[in-house]
Amino acid sequence: MGTKSYFLNFFIVCILVQCVLTDANDDNPAWRWSCINGRCMKMEFDPNSKEPYLNAESCKMFCGTFGLLWPQPTSGVDLGSHLSKINLDKINIINEASGKSDELMTAAGERFKKLLLKIIPEGVTPKMRGKSLMVYLVNKNPDVKEMSLDVDETYQLRIGASSDDQVNATIIGRTFFGIRHGLETLSQLVIYDDIRDLVLITRDVSVDDGPVYPYRGILLDTARNYFTVESIKRTIEAMAAVKLNTFHWHITDSQSFPFVSQRRPSLTKYGAYSPSKVYTREAIADIVQFALVRGVRVLPEFDAPAHVGEGWQHTDLTVCFKAEPWSSYCVEPPCGQLDPTKDELYDVLEDIYRDMAEVFPTDMFHMGGDEVSEACWNSSAEVRGFMAARGWGLDKASYLRLWDYFQERAQARAYKAFGKKLPLILWTSSLTEFDHIDKYLNKDDYIIQVWTSGSSPEIKGMLNKGYKLIISNYDALYLDCGFSSWVGLGNNWCSPYIGWQKVYLNSPASMAVGHEKQILGAEAALWSEQADSSALDGRVWPRAAALAERLWAEPGGGFEQVEQRMLHIRDRLVALGVQADSIEPEWCYQNEGYCHR
Amino acid sequence: MGTKSYFLNFFIVCILVQCVLTDANDDNPAWRWSCINGRCMKMEFDPNSKEPYLNAESCKMFCGTFGLLWPQPTSGVDLGSHLSKINLDKINIINEASGKSDELMTAAGERFKKLLLKIIPEGVTPKMRGKSLMVYLVNKNPDVKEMSLDVDETYQLRIGASSDDQVNATIIGRTFFGIRHGLETLSQLVIYDDIRDLVLITRDVSVDDGPVYPYRGILLDTARNYFTVESIKRTIEAMAAVKLNTFHWHITDSQSFPFVSQRRPSLTKYGAYSPSKVYTREAIADIVQFALVRGVRVLPEFDAPAHVGEGWQHTDLTVCFKAEPWSSYCVEPPCGQLDPTKDELYDVLEDIYRDMAEVFPTDMFHMGGDEVSEACWNSSAEVRGFMAARGWGLDKASYLRLWDYFQERAQARAYKAFGKKLPLILWTSSLTEFDHIDKYLNKDDYIIQVWTSGSSPEIKGMLNKGYKLIISNYDALYLDCGFSSWVGLGNNWCSPYIGWQKVYLNSPASMAVGHEKQILGAEAALWSEQADSSALDGRVWPRAAALAERLWAEPGGGFEQVEQRMLHIRDRLVALGVQADSIEPEWCYQNEGYCHR
Repeated sequence: MGTKSYFLNFFIVCILVQCVLTDANDDNPAWRWSCINGRCMKMEFDPNSKEPYLNAESCKMFCGTFGLLWPQPTSGVDLGSHLSKINLDKINIINEASGKSDELMTAAGERFKKLLLKIIPEGVTPKMRGKSLMVYLVNKNPDVKEMSLDVDETYQLRIGASSDDQVNATIIGRTFFGIRHGLETLSQLVIYDDIRDLVLITRDVSVDDGPVYPYRGILLDTARNYFTVESIKRTIEAMAAVKLNTFHWHITDSQSFPFVSQRRPSLTKYGAYSPSKVYTREAIADIVQFALVRGVRVLPEFDAPAHVGEGWQHTDLTVCFKAEPWSSYCVEPPCGQLDPTKDELYDVLEDIYRDMAEVFPTDMFHMGGDEVSEACWNSSAEVRGFMAARGWGLDKASYLRLWDYFQERAQARAYKAFGKKLPLILWTSSLTEFDHIDKYLNKDDYIIQVWTSGSSPEIKGMLNKGYKLIISNYDALYLDCGFSSWVGLGNNWCSPYIGWQKVYLNSPASMAVGHEKQILGAEAALWSEQADSSALDGRVWPRAAALAERLWAEPGGGFEQVEQRMLHIRDRLVALGVQADSIEPEWCYQNEGYCHR
Repeated sequence: MGTKSYFLNFFIVCILVQCVLTDANDDNPAWRWSCINGRCMKMEFDPNSKEPYLNAESCKMFCGTFGLLWPQPTSGVDLGSHLSKINLDKINIINEASGKSDELMTAAGERFKKLLLKIIPEGVTPKMRGKSLMVYLVNKNPDVKEMSLDVDETYQLRIGASSDDQVNATIIGRTFFGIRHGLETLSQLVIYDDIRDLVLITRDVSVDDGPVYPYRGILLDTARNYFTVESIKRTIEAMAAVKLNTFHWHITDSQSFPFVSQRRPSLTKYGAYSPSKVYTREAIADIVQFALVRGVRVLPEFDAPAHVGEGWQHTDLTVCFKAEPWSSYCVEPPCGQLDPTKDELYDVLEDIYRDMAEVFPTDMFHMGGDEVSEACWNSSAEVRGFMAARGWGLDKASYLRLWDYFQERAQARAYKAFGKKLPLILWTSSLTEFDHIDKYLNKDDYIIQVWTSGSSPEIKGMLNKGYKLIISNYDALYLDCGFSSWVGLGNNWCSPYIGWQKVYLNSPASMAVGHEKQILGAEAALWSEQADSSALDGRVWPRAAALAERLWAEPGGGFEQVEQRMLHIRDRLVALGVQADSIEPEWCYQNEGYCHR
């Protein structure tokens, strides 16, 4: 939108908003905001002025193309120029179509009502006055109630001109998942006006929207430290707020085994940090349903054959567990890998997979597969004996062969346990190197999650060989980077800290020119050596919101243009109960355009 | 303590703890901990073993010299080898001496009881059984109720052998402030045993303790972003937990003026981010009293002549406010400095100082004085005219003269407003450079707060000239370092992030060899361009706890020896309701000694 239309918008706002906003508080405020040349400028309040006294939010809703929406809509957006008072006690949601997703639709509607209440600052009881809000939900495929990579997440939102006492909104979607996103957008069009103590809705709105990438994720590692169920749900709530759709649960690792295995309970008994730091079936079911209502799939990972250890004490199935010096056998303490030569191992794996299949109704399964150490396997006489018996060497190629032997068997057990040939995901590793990835991994069976740097030639190599990728390049999407080391002095391995700007600018499409369709999306990862329930929100948010807009829209511009919306979504996350990190002085939000070099 | 005495301790614990810990839960736990060679080792639980099944905390309480105490006591510590069950419903505190500090003593006692309840994990209702605890407080100077640099913070704590139904503890201190620290130590000797669901107290204890430095602070900047009163009190609560004693309140800056000035209310009206983002007299009085009960002074700073701007709109007393490009006139947006040439300015300053003197019953006053820009002053024709009229040039030396002109007048007004010649504090700046500091600042009037790097020769220079210093070297004590830039791409100016280890190893004494007595202490600073109430706890904690032990004890060893206690105090802060950052996998706490290179 050029300067001319900004000006036009400005004058429309001046004329029309004034009509509905005449009940001024007698205590004159110090400041008001006015949209000038596409920037909301802070101006001294003048009681004699004919201009409307907009607060910062009311101004910003109309001063840029995308108002306060995050992520920015992709197909069409017209936010009009009107705000109407609404009464949060008078919200009605009408589900126009009926089907198997009815329960989800109802739950999403209830959540929507609660979302609106959260925009009101704590301690404030706004005057409940204004028009009622009628929301019509038109779900074209009301029987779709499961996430998949093909699910249609698009929606159309229309908010009409208001009648005397009612504002009507209509959301049309091809599935529940699209409708749900529409409700999210609608909730972002409702703002609290702290100058007049009113709740306002943007009207005369038209939004046509849908994501660029089908996979938009956050990984949480609940093994290096434990995360409470409450903190996981809080994370999913925030994901929904920015239309992320995949909670990748790295649930076990060498350090702990908090997943409650019904079939192999000793893994949990010996592997959990304490009897209370576990994820029971009931807790997982609760999380899965909570996520589904919010359009989020919960994708389980059982990382193997490396990244195991605690919990396996009463089996004979691991190698090099707690070996020292750890740096000779793995990348961090404690070391530990499964012993792929034991037949019993595959029975245990199948049991774990079955336990997971029963509680995670997932359309995909993550098998981990990162950071396998030859030195670890090589430290076992039994492994070496197995290799020798087959006439294999003890070189890298032979250990890749052993890994392949493992992966082939694990894959078969996964299919068996899940009862279907579902897409499997593996991390990039020595197994996925360009010259031999296709020797070991069938591109139709495996999706590769990339955690190399974003400029690694491996990405183009795998794309050229036809693999589908999920991008998690550590140099932009590892949210644990930059803090202190935990095994010595200095900073951790992937320092420095990655700012939201870098996350925002990290474009999967630009890594995949010519192969865009093979990029399923991307994912930010919180490895939790230095994070737990207390240190979760600030690590993930608002940076994951930056990722969310990148994946929803693949926007062309820089970070400067979106900064005001970013500051707003950060504050919104805080209002939703998420302790999102602070990224700028509030002064920069109130004084748009001044906080740049 | 050598290996031999560790072993001895271990056996004593084995023999004696067992006696009181015989009521085992039938559900056998997976793990127990045992002190071997000075490390608490995780061992498989064996129901047939005669060894006591200690949880990690019970083991760690006796396995090192300082148990789980943080900061480590300085004069003498013997934690014995016994744990006794106590009943938190049966705690009695007897104040043996009466005086003006009675109210503080009572409040500190009540807080102590609440502290003990906080160690019990949420959702757990421990069996309230065990002995009663009788705490005798012997205050040698019960009339002392004000903080000062000379106040005696030492204490002695004795916990006796228990009788059948009672444990007796005695705390002897020379002031309330010492007694209070003794209560803090006593609270750290009470642990919750999650294996048996019991509250245990360490007995047969003797601790003689007192701080190395009298000034042990945290700075919070509430101007770049606003912090809620609740979040400030939470910070002070955590400070008390680690015996920090100064909350330095950088309450205003160029970006906002949240301090409610009674005499100049328009500063607040135009300067606050919103009418609710202010600190009223009542709120400040609440914070000051809350802090005093916790042994913490609240030290106000009014930073001048730079670092002003918002709020001063309706005066004619600032120069270069919001000037652009800001980088020509100041270090971050918005620029702004007071105009020292206006006589009216000093009346306004006196009013602000008076407002502060009325709400902050402080023994010191911080006058700021950092980052004054010649270019800013030089941008004003009026300032240049003032200089010309006096025959001064427009060079650096002349602007220092102008600054001196300002500081001399401001100092006089401060003394007048506070009604006494109290110690004044200034930041290092171009005014404090070695070759001329004594020309401008009298060493008997001013304490200098150092924010250069820790290796700057300026430190030794000022010490040689006799100045008293507070150390806040940015390369170890600026807690805002390492995050993303907020005015562009990349990371912020003082990156990288500073780990707790570096904070811990940052020794004021080693900067001051030969002048140790001139170092009053040190202070960690949270400048809040990228922090607010939501992002506060994780930035400050547990790193400020590392500072606390450094200042309390000036320990000689490395960080590795204190790591287990550090992990424990971090968890304790979380239990106290502080969202302290996570620094290691829980695995490292459960598997002592394995998380090092």
